[in-house]
Amino acid sequence: MRFFPTLLAASLMLATGAAAAANGDTVIPAAAVQTATQLRDKAMGDDTGYKIVQSLTTEVGPRLAGSPADPRGREWAIAKFKELGFDKVYTEPVTYPLWERRSEHATIVAPFPQPLMLTALGYSAGTPQGGLTAQVVKFDSLDALKNADAATVKGKIIYIGFRMQRHKDGHDYGMGSAVRTQGPVIASRLGAAGFLLRSAGTDEHSRTPHTGVTGFTDPKDAIPAAALSNPDADQLERVLAYGKPVMVKLDLDVGFHGSYTGANVIGEITGRKHPDQVVAIGGHLDSWDPGTGAIDDGAGVAIAMAAGKLIRDLPQRPDRTIRVIAFANEEMGLWGGRAYAQKHAAEAGKHQLGTESDFGAGKVWRMSASVKPQARGAIEQIAKVLEPIGVAYDPQRPGGGGSDLSQMHGKGMAALSLTQDGTYYFDYHHNANDTLDKIDPREMAQNVAVYAAFSYMAAQAQGDFGSAPGAFAKDGAED
Amino acid sequence: MRFFPTLLAASLMLATGAAAAANGDTVIPAAAVQTATQLRDKAMGDDTGYKIVQSLTTEVGPRLAGSPADPRGREWAIAKFKELGFDKVYTEPVTYPLWERRSEHATIVAPFPQPLMLTALGYSAGTPQGGLTAQVVKFDSLDALKNADAATVKGKIIYIGFRMQRHKDGHDYGMGSAVRTQGPVIASRLGAAGFLLRSAGTDEHSRTPHTGVTGFTDPKDAIPAAALSNPDADQLERVLAYGKPVMVKLDLDVGFHGSYTGANVIGEITGRKHPDQVVAIGGHLDSWDPGTGAIDDGAGVAIAMAAGKLIRDLPQRPDRTIRVIAFANEEMGLWGGRAYAQKHAAEAGKHQLGTESDFGAGKVWRMSASVKPQARGAIEQIAKVLEPIGVAYDPQRPGGGGSDLSQMHGKGMAALSLTQDGTYYFDYHHNANDTLDKIDPREMAQNVAVYAAFSYMAAQAQGDFGSAPGAFAKDGAED
Repeated sequence: MRFFPTLLAASLMLATGAAAAANGDTVIPAAAVQTATQLRDKAMGDDTGYKIVQSLTTEVGPRLAGSPADPRGREWAIAKFKELGFDKVYTEPVTYPLWERRSEHATIVAPFPQPLMLTALGYSAGTPQGGLTAQVVKFDSLDALKNADAATVKGKIIYIGFRMQRHKDGHDYGMGSAVRTQGPVIASRLGAAGFLLRSAGTDEHSRTPHTGVTGFTDPKDAIPAAALSNPDADQLERVLAYGKPVMVKLDLDVGFHGSYTGANVIGEITGRKHPDQVVAIGGHLDSWDPGTGAIDDGAGVAIAMAAGKLIRDLPQRPDRTIRVIAFANEEMGLWGGRAYAQKHAAEAGKHQLGTESDFGAGKVWRMSASVKPQARGAIEQIAKVLEPIGVAYDPQRPGGGGSDLSQMHGKGMAALSLTQDGTYYFDYHHNANDTLDKIDPREMAQNVAVYAAFSYMAAQAQGDFGSAPGAFAKDGAED
Repeated sequence: MRFFPTLLAASLMLATGAAAAANGDTVIPAAAVQTATQLRDKAMGDDTGYKIVQSLTTEVGPRLAGSPADPRGREWAIAKFKELGFDKVYTEPVTYPLWERRSEHATIVAPFPQPLMLTALGYSAGTPQGGLTAQVVKFDSLDALKNADAATVKGKIIYIGFRMQRHKDGHDYGMGSAVRTQGPVIASRLGAAGFLLRSAGTDEHSRTPHTGVTGFTDPKDAIPAAALSNPDADQLERVLAYGKPVMVKLDLDVGFHGSYTGANVIGEITGRKHPDQVVAIGGHLDSWDPGTGAIDDGAGVAIAMAAGKLIRDLPQRPDRTIRVIAFANEEMGLWGGRAYAQKHAAEAGKHQLGTESDFGAGKVWRMSASVKPQARGAIEQIAKVLEPIGVAYDPQRPGGGGSDLSQMHGKGMAALSLTQDGTYYFDYHHNANDTLDKIDPREMAQNVAVYAAFSYMAAQAQGDFGSAPGAFAKDGAED
């Protein structure tokens, strides 16, 4: 009900075909709405996105940032943009610390000797030659660890067993990722020898531990840190419940190895009227190494590339440029997103509207936006086109721009959030099961439809969405 | 309907309380049926079985035959039988070839370099130092490989992609295990360098490859043989579909290492009247090493142990002995079962009735028997007690005695088959996901109820079930 007057106003404007500029409101012309609707419907039955993610995950496979697969991923992206007919394809360098995983093993040494399945966390230290054996001490929560007496932690392997539950919006990852990023740092500060957590994942029956980055920013602070699969965490807890000292041996051959320069790979459909004004969409090209990075984030790259390709196939180029960015090294700390935002901060005002897909390939079910008030009507026009394919508009929430593009939003780019159904995302996220078979081609197509339709409408809007340096620096923390 | 006359006869006998011996039919006295019914109902609400499998999988974990965990498993079984109050606990030696798994890795070398997740198969050869790299050649079926020209196979890594589907009776494992056991042998004979299969498992989305034994009986014939997880098999097939030569590197540090002597561990509840006559039940104590052997076959050991324990807790011992056997090394070829049958062949006539649980912990839904015609009425009496807990009697099917006890059935022991619901069994069978969380304590309890009730009735039967040397040598191949 509260939106009715605005929607009515927008409808009236559309009905009369009037330009919006008169009252300062941004509006999307009726012809653009019609073309976006056709794009949407075409995309719903199109498999371009699925074919792109199939190509990436098959021909490149896992793409750990800085690994030998990293340049192969970049070459793939450059070639794919060209094959899809993008007008301009280029790269921008991204430099970050190189972290390598060579091997990882663990065993319970006592009281019940047996192997444990785990995966080292990003920026974890390696263990000494021959491994590290220490007693495991369990903490019930991150807060309990924060409040721990250093004497109980010193020289021990700390374990925290926070258990994530499945939710459509994946909100348990808030705590799951907090345990993973902050836990090792706190444990290190208190003198722990190592850190283990129950995987930040919802696949409670699968022996596929979930990796992910820690909060270590300086190699000197890093200690060995790893995630147990859910069944292995159950097993460790059962063993601990016998009340005997539990000794675990960690053997992690991982660690920092200087720095590495990769690149964001960018493809553009050049705007016909305003080539310097861009609608920025994308995903991240790197992935964690246990899986092939299908849902995280081959899907995001493919959704954005496919949306660009469908717009490119229109009879003429859109008014503004569609910029598709395949970001480098999102996983270890938004390195690609930060590099992009730093390089393009001064051009925030040229970024019409932006958002990144980085939450799998489940259907988009919610849209929200951070735009200037005068652009709210245009956002509602976009919402109206997306509503028939299952996207509900929530005007109360900010739009964050997604993971890497949150950084550009922080510089003042107006941003959407296009929230995907993440019910099962954390079953596969950051583990070996992140493979192509987890993607439903029809859900993938719905995502492409959303991105194609919104990007085209943003590119054709009369008036802008309020991007300007610093304009949205305070919100957008959602992602 | 077809069973009515016999059931009626049995009911009349029970009603009159008459002994059956008069007409030569075996019959279970009414008091025994009543006690068995009470045992059944008690077992349905009892967690002894679940606690036993929890203890085994937690305190011992994986139990690969001949590995350092093998003697720990035996010590556990001896201690558990004693703790449960069995009257007699002893071991019988079992000798078999020792096969070891140290590490296993594989990568696609060309055209798209990336790792593959696989597991070496039992009795596989190791690869040379530095690994084995060869071209992969795909065959559509085992038959296609059998009919292959040696020239197309020589020096290649053969791949067969048979895909198992879920079925309650798990019948796709017939072909799945045939590919796994026969495929490597045929490939070796044709001069292949190695053999790969799509895992004989139904977990199509899990990167947990399923191991299992091959048909190699002589180390000299063995070639490297391994199973890809289902998603890895999908990936290899996608890569093959590009039509370019696909080179794979196998690095399997596994192989034969002399011989090993383990043992079957046996616990008995001694019969009050006929201590030398036994009802033989059991499971196998060894497991494959990727998981903790919860459903295969910690569950079977626990079901049989718990059934014995519940019978032991009755006010007096049963007439005949309940013999619970925890078999050694079932996985690499029924070594424990064959040793038992060889040692006890002459005592087949003393084995009243037997069956082993080795198909997980899903509910028992079907019973069948191989007994003498005069014991059919007693089997129907057993069926009548089990029917209220979901077990349907199929008089048309033979009873096989289960995996290891099929060997004793082959020597003439009368046998049951108590078929469990195996719909999800092959999701977890022989892979890392075979862990305690896959067992539903209530389904486990139903299994214990079935084993306790039938074992007790068999122990109390007036008359026998027809066991005699050679009596059932021809059937029982079902398991």
